Amino acid sequence: MKTTILIHCPDKSGIISDVTNFIHESNGNIIYLDQHVDKEVGVFFMRLESDFDAPNFSIVNFRNGFGENLGTKYEMKWRIYSSGIKPKMALFVSKYNHCLYDLLSRFNSGELEVEIPFIISNHNDLQYVAEQFNIPFYHIPVTKTTKKEAENQQLKLLKDHKVDFVVLARYMQIVTKKIIDCYPNKIINIHHSFLPAFAGAKPYHAAFERGVKIIGATCHYVTEELDAGPIIEQDVTAVSHSHSIKDFIAKGRDLEKIVLSRGVKLHIRRKTMVYNNKTVIFS
Amino acid sequence: MKTTILIHCPDKSGIISDVTNFIHESNGNIIYLDQHVDKEVGVFFMRLESDFDAPNFSIVNFRNGFGENLGTKYEMKWRIYSSGIKPKMALFVSKYNHCLYDLLSRFNSGELEVEIPFIISNHNDLQYVAEQFNIPFYHIPVTKTTKKEAENQQLKLLKDHKVDFVVLARYMQIVTKKIIDCYPNKIINIHHSFLPAFAGAKPYHAAFERGVKIIGATCHYVTEELDAGPIIEQDVTAVSHSHSIKDFIAKGRDLEKIVLSRGVKLHIRRKTMVYNNKTVIFS
Amino acid sequence: MKTTILIHCPDKSGIISDVTNFIHESNGNIIYLDQHVDKEVGVFFMRLESDFDAPNFSIVNFRNGFGENLGTKYEMKWRIYSSGIKPKMALFVSKYNHCLYDLLSRFNSGELEVEIPFIISNHNDLQYVAEQFNIPFYHIPVTKTTKKEAENQQLKLLKDHKVDFVVLARYMQIVTKKIIDCYPNKIINIHHSFLPAFAGAKPYHAAFERGVKIIGATCHYVTEELDAGPIIEQDVTAVSHSHSIKDFIAKGRDLEKIVLSRGVKLHIRRKTMVYNNKTVIFS
Amino acid sequence: MKTTILIHCPDKSGIISDVTNFIHESNGNIIYLDQHVDKEVGVFFMRLESDFDAPNFSIVNFRNGFGENLGTKYEMKWRIYSSGIKPKMALFVSKYNHCLYDLLSRFNSGELEVEIPFIISNHNDLQYVAEQFNIPFYHIPVTKTTKKEAENQQLKLLKDHKVDFVVLARYMQIVTKKIIDCYPNKIINIHHSFLPAFAGAKPYHAAFERGVKIIGATCHYVTEELDAGPIIEQDVTAVSHSHSIKDFIAKGRDLEKIVLSRGVKLHIRRKTMVYNNKTVIFS
Repeated sequence: MKTTILIHCPDKSGIISDVTNFIHESNGNIIYLDQHVDKEVGVFFMRLESDFDAPNFSIVNFRNGFGENLGTKYEMKWRIYSSGIKPKMALFVSKYNHCLYDLLSRFNSGELEVEIPFIISNHNDLQYVAEQFNIPFYHIPVTKTTKKEAENQQLKLLKDHKVDFVVLARYMQIVTKKIIDCYPNKIINIHHSFLPAFAGAKPYHAAFERGVKIIGATCHYVTEELDAGPIIEQDVTAVSHSHSIKDFIAKGRDLEKIVLSRGVKLHIRRKTMVYNNKTVIFS
Repeated sequence: MKTTILIHCPDKSGIISDVTNFIHESNGNIIYLDQHVDKEVGVFFMRLESDFDAPNFSIVNFRNGFGENLGTKYEMKWRIYSSGIKPKMALFVSKYNHCLYDLLSRFNSGELEVEIPFIISNHNDLQYVAEQFNIPFYHIPVTKTTKKEAENQQLKLLKDHKVDFVVLARYMQIVTKKIIDCYPNKIINIHHSFLPAFAGAKPYHAAFERGVKIIGATCHYVTEELDAGPIIEQDVTAVSHSHSIKDFIAKGRDLEKIVLSRGVKLHIRRKTMVYNNKTVIFS
Repeated sequence: MKTTILIHCPDKSGIISDVTNFIHESNGNIIYLDQHVDKEVGVFFMRLESDFDAPNFSIVNFRNGFGENLGTKYEMKWRIYSSGIKPKMALFVSKYNHCLYDLLSRFNSGELEVEIPFIISNHNDLQYVAEQFNIPFYHIPVTKTTKKEAENQQLKLLKDHKVDFVVLARYMQIVTKKIIDCYPNKIINIHHSFLPAFAGAKPYHAAFERGVKIIGATCHYVTEELDAGPIIEQDVTAVSHSHSIKDFIAKGRDLEKIVLSRGVKLHIRRKTMVYNNKTVIFS
Repeated sequence: MKTTILIHCPDKSGIISDVTNFIHESNGNIIYLDQHVDKEVGVFFMRLESDFDAPNFSIVNFRNGFGENLGTKYEMKWRIYSSGIKPKMALFVSKYNHCLYDLLSRFNSGELEVEIPFIISNHNDLQYVAEQFNIPFYHIPVTKTTKKEAENQQLKLLKDHKVDFVVLARYMQIVTKKIIDCYPNKIINIHHSFLPAFAGAKPYHAAFERGVKIIGATCHYVTEELDAGPIIEQDVTAVSHSHSIKDFIAKGRDLEKIVLSRGVKLHIRRKTMVYNNKTVIFS
């Protein structure tokens, strides 16, 4: 059985040796180890992939042993995933289809190891895409008066389907605190600028106005403060005076979909850890 | 004789045809033409390189004719440069040597077609570099009390040497309004972030704090508002959680020197035009 | 009426002035002009977009006048397109769906101003994608014995539907000389390496073997010599020792679809000219 | 005392645990660990940085213990470096100064933790640069008849100064097998193309001829086969039809110096390992 272990704890001598020993003594073979120390705050991070081939291997016993022997000793926050269980990803969209198409065609090609129980949208413009790919589509309009009710409907769907994480694939609404609190560091957004430049609405217009020579896109976890959550992935592309705002938007679409899918893949593969509103991205 | 013509004026039908005709009738051969219309503000921009081989060609007559025939008709702002005259570039530095070394080694290799009458610094740390390259070096300290006097010394040097434009090669002082007013769109700065993100002091620290995955550098013309002038050139490089602030600074140095030198070369070749606090960069 | 004019001819003094004059006298307004001289071979290239608003404007008369007045005088190869006519693009695919999905979702979003009369494939793996997007799909198997017949079937479809250009969206067969001769510089291929490195089969395996730190994709016009046609667009992405061949292929897919769609858009907008097995790409 | 350990050996279960244990028991603190398994050939690679603070710590004893306990058990190739010893780097140049200037200005700024005992050139064009930076300069001409003698002179200098590695900073001669054999994976070259494209002479001319839209530079270890050694670092930049060969060369210069300096820094920091003519580059 393949497992992925994610750890963070106060930095201390002996952690790597103790953890790798424990895996070795549990008859595990370490396939991959990546580790990082944030020296400013004295925090240790590690990600391990291991293989446990013994026929009598029990992930439950291993988890218990890990917690008792190491978790407590080093005051670790730790998670142990066994492979083979696909996380459930919900998609929130509005009217733009490029990110949705990109994610669904990757999903269809087997590139994303997830289940997609449903797509939620505040408009029904993209229902046809959901139908093309045979994914249930829920149209939940969001207006000032229906906001509360929409939130409840969204939450119910997320819980009923045991959704593990949410991807805002150009969802043009602000996700509410209540939902964010239920999915901390589990809501992934794509913002169409190289944050922190041009946070907020209409970043391509602002970039055009400022006369920048580079535009970007940022994939980040959603926190209460708008466009200020931990950054997972960014990329940029060159622009010039000859590009109109329409050109910025067209070029940006290609950035957005690529950057979002990279971020989503990192999340699915458990290669991200969040600390102090920043991410550690394992290789 | 080779000439470079730069034009901007209200957009109107017939300009290209009239200008190219005028050059053709003056026995000029157009080697290169690049043109741009800012549709938002209705302004036309053009850059032409032409060859005038006729033995009796007079640049003075051509300029006069151009102004009378076209400048007035189209309400143009225009400039006509004849090649062979090297602009005079003054360098302002503080303590970091990477941009200075880069510019001077390019200068020494004949890559920059300028004269460098002098280097000014508020410290004498880099005097040795000036000496390595045999460029006069003026140490003009800038303190709260000497600011006025320093400004006057700087201005006198600039005027005595008939300096055409100034490059702030990591000059860590704010250039005063008086000097900016004397050299509008003729003072080139390198800022160590992808503006408008992280304007102001310590951008690498701010970028580290925010947890960005990309850092950048921006070459721009200096205006009164700090780090808000027209952007000439930008570039970026990827960073990760594993990079410390020191790593950001080291990686940034390579960006800064390359981006600054690109901006300086564009300016020297008269490939930049400024309008509405933005640049048109001709190819 | 909007028109796009493409010209190439031996370089000579006066062309720009003559052409812009002719447009001006035909009551046209030049919106955009880009020009290039290949000095090595003495060839002049120009692309113009113009607006002709006069109610009595006749594109036929304009074409005739252009040919008589300028085409002959300067020995031009020239084409004049009027906007509003969508070119017909045929798609050839095999088994990989990423480029096909990318092109069709752009098409569906109105990003590509073409008609797509049909998709041809030597396998029927991707028929379901064609059905998702309601595009006719022809399964034309290609084996050693059926090659000739397949070619004829393909050609018949291309001609019956008056196809203007063909996009090989990861079509894993070699297109025959007969077809190439019918569509010179009108068959666009995506090759999964930064050509000329790793031409031929299995470029990601070859790149992995060589231990490169960068992989790429190349969009080019198809000529008889395999992977040696005029390059329209290239892009690259960084890789490391930690990436397997499978990782190369996954990263490559993102490059391939973006680079192919950029190339296709340049072709659709008539921004490409071919000369001496190289392209001029207008801005 | 800080140490860097580099290991490669046949992949086997238990290595990480054994090595980290050994360091822990030697009262060392692991600051950094990066590991890689080449699954195709079944080889394990690891790089560790550790701190040994105990006053009685002996690097000699540690090395002996490491070899006896782990080296033999796992059939390791291993090296243990203690920090604080600067490697000796010799520079070979010809006539181009950009890479030399770049390396020396970095050296002067303390960016490269090496000693530079001397510069060798087959021309004396760059003697002035050596003098600017006060580095001994040896002019060793290389002609058909003097090749053997030149090689001996070069080798004598390298040995007399106990040079650790050699950087060919645009040295336009082929380094002989005899010298390569003395410095295996210790001679660093910069080639002015994205290898394997355009190996050999005049890569910019070849790139121009082929009409590529991207040019590159490659830093690699020198092996007997020309331009075919293990690649350390590569980077690229966009070009267009509007760039002449001269433009390619100018743009290339910036790539070459940056890519070479990155490769040299990776080597100095012992972040490179070579296996099967490929490199593992630790983060």
